[in-house]
Amino acid sequence: MQAMDRGEATTRVAIRALDAGGETAREDTIAVEEPMEIRVSSGPEGERRMRSVSVTMRTPGHDFELAVGFLRGEGLLTRRDQLVEIALCGPPPPGRAQSNIVRVTLAQDVELDLVKLQRNFYSTSSCGICGKASLDALDFEGYQAADPARLRVAAEVVHGMPAALRSAQEAFDLTGGLHAAGLFRADGTLDLCREDVGRHNAVDKLIGRRFLDGRLELADHILMVSGRVSFEILQKALSAGIPAIVAVGAPSSLAVELAERFSMTLIGFARDRRFNVYAGASRVVRGG
Amino acid sequence: MQAMDRGEATTRVAIRALDAGGETAREDTIAVEEPMEIRVSSGPEGERRMRSVSVTMRTPGHDFELAVGFLRGEGLLTRRDQLVEIALCGPPPPGRAQSNIVRVTLAQDVELDLVKLQRNFYSTSSCGICGKASLDALDFEGYQAADPARLRVAAEVVHGMPAALRSAQEAFDLTGGLHAAGLFRADGTLDLCREDVGRHNAVDKLIGRRFLDGRLELADHILMVSGRVSFEILQKALSAGIPAIVAVGAPSSLAVELAERFSMTLIGFARDRRFNVYAGASRVVRGG
Repeated sequence: MQAMDRGEATTRVAIRALDAGGETAREDTIAVEEPMEIRVSSGPEGERRMRSVSVTMRTPGHDFELAVGFLRGEGLLTRRDQLVEIALCGPPPPGRAQSNIVRVTLAQDVELDLVKLQRNFYSTSSCGICGKASLDALDFEGYQAADPARLRVAAEVVHGMPAALRSAQEAFDLTGGLHAAGLFRADGTLDLCREDVGRHNAVDKLIGRRFLDGRLELADHILMVSGRVSFEILQKALSAGIPAIVAVGAPSSLAVELAERFSMTLIGFARDRRFNVYAGASRVVRGG
Repeated sequence: MQAMDRGEATTRVAIRALDAGGETAREDTIAVEEPMEIRVSSGPEGERRMRSVSVTMRTPGHDFELAVGFLRGEGLLTRRDQLVEIALCGPPPPGRAQSNIVRVTLAQDVELDLVKLQRNFYSTSSCGICGKASLDALDFEGYQAADPARLRVAAEVVHGMPAALRSAQEAFDLTGGLHAAGLFRADGTLDLCREDVGRHNAVDKLIGRRFLDGRLELADHILMVSGRVSFEILQKALSAGIPAIVAVGAPSSLAVELAERFSMTLIGFARDRRFNVYAGASRVVRGG
């Protein structure tokens, strides 16, 4: 399922660069951002339907991983055997090498839970509901707390992670415009790195890769992100069973709350051999 | 309409900070991220309906601006007199000072174009459509190109913008976790600055403020953002009639394409008295 999902992550454009020395016309390398549509084919034989479930702005490459990681993060895919096929769909747009539409075919017995996908949208309600309504988008039914007794990470390992992630980033140094996400083991080994203009997409690609490989056991892994860490990143890690997140940047309040609620470890500002532990400090061990 | 939309942008949490000197338990200030739901009440008398149109993760504060800016950016609001009322809806969630639900009431003759809002979602299609389908989410019907002959900005003004924006940011220095967006005049005057954990929200708040004030004429203004600049930011500027965007970070390929297509000026990497012009260079004047 890998052959066709490689796109171009960067492109060259003509620019004018202005600085103290004056003005120069030159070329610059920028990160490619293009829409990708995910379509899901599901239902029993004779009643199969194709539905467009998402249009995401992403950096081309690893598109199948992105599609699967997205569906996994939304709770629409849970097991590898629910997937029958992933394929590109239709001809490429003008000037492009391949289509930006990914079609995911589900097994006949898999029900596509559109209600779950629709949760943020178009809940029609009479005004009487106002006020009673909790924000149902924040429904965590089905999520499991991480095991606080499992996974220990040495501070020294955390200190080494930013450099490891950075050296694995192929496109960042060229563009300055891509987020990276890395999947680390507790001993500091970087298993996998993905980049994207969207930070959530980079995480989806990582998780999608592991899903496609049938290697979904991530309870001993650490997710690292190159920027800030918001609710959405925590939610994706939680959904994939990853108990620890390390970010180069700042966490948001909701990221911290979510980490505490589900016994996850959340580390921010990991750079220059310093870091802050915002939740789940018992997993971080000094010395040793 | 301003009285009730001020929330807390930052909060304090207990952390453990680790560095070469060892480990310290202390407090840290982080950016607040909370969901906000936008509900729209529309329709002729007797048939009015309330619909939930969006749940966004945002930093509390300027919530009415965010709601209006979002609806403006989606093309659902175009004129000030379409708005009858904006109000908070329902009691606050536990432990919070005010509700996270904003209700926007439209005038009776305003039709809520749900198709426009729905464009990314749930277009049910038979497999035959695959391949023919363009990515309809990128439909720019109704957008107008900027006037290339209007607005000139001196390079010296661009050099001064990052420091001006930074000094207007109230919360960033405390948290390191907030994006800022600023609305500048051509002479470098900063008219308005807004912050948010989401970069698109900061832009929506700016545009929403101007919409609420009935000051929608932005053809001589420049939008500055504190980070990278993607398609979505360009789209919001275009939708508001802002012809020039300056970013501290990198642009994406689609941001550059959109700028070119609509005769907008796009500047990236504006820092340390340097910048790159990716599109619309004729608006940038040196010396003078």
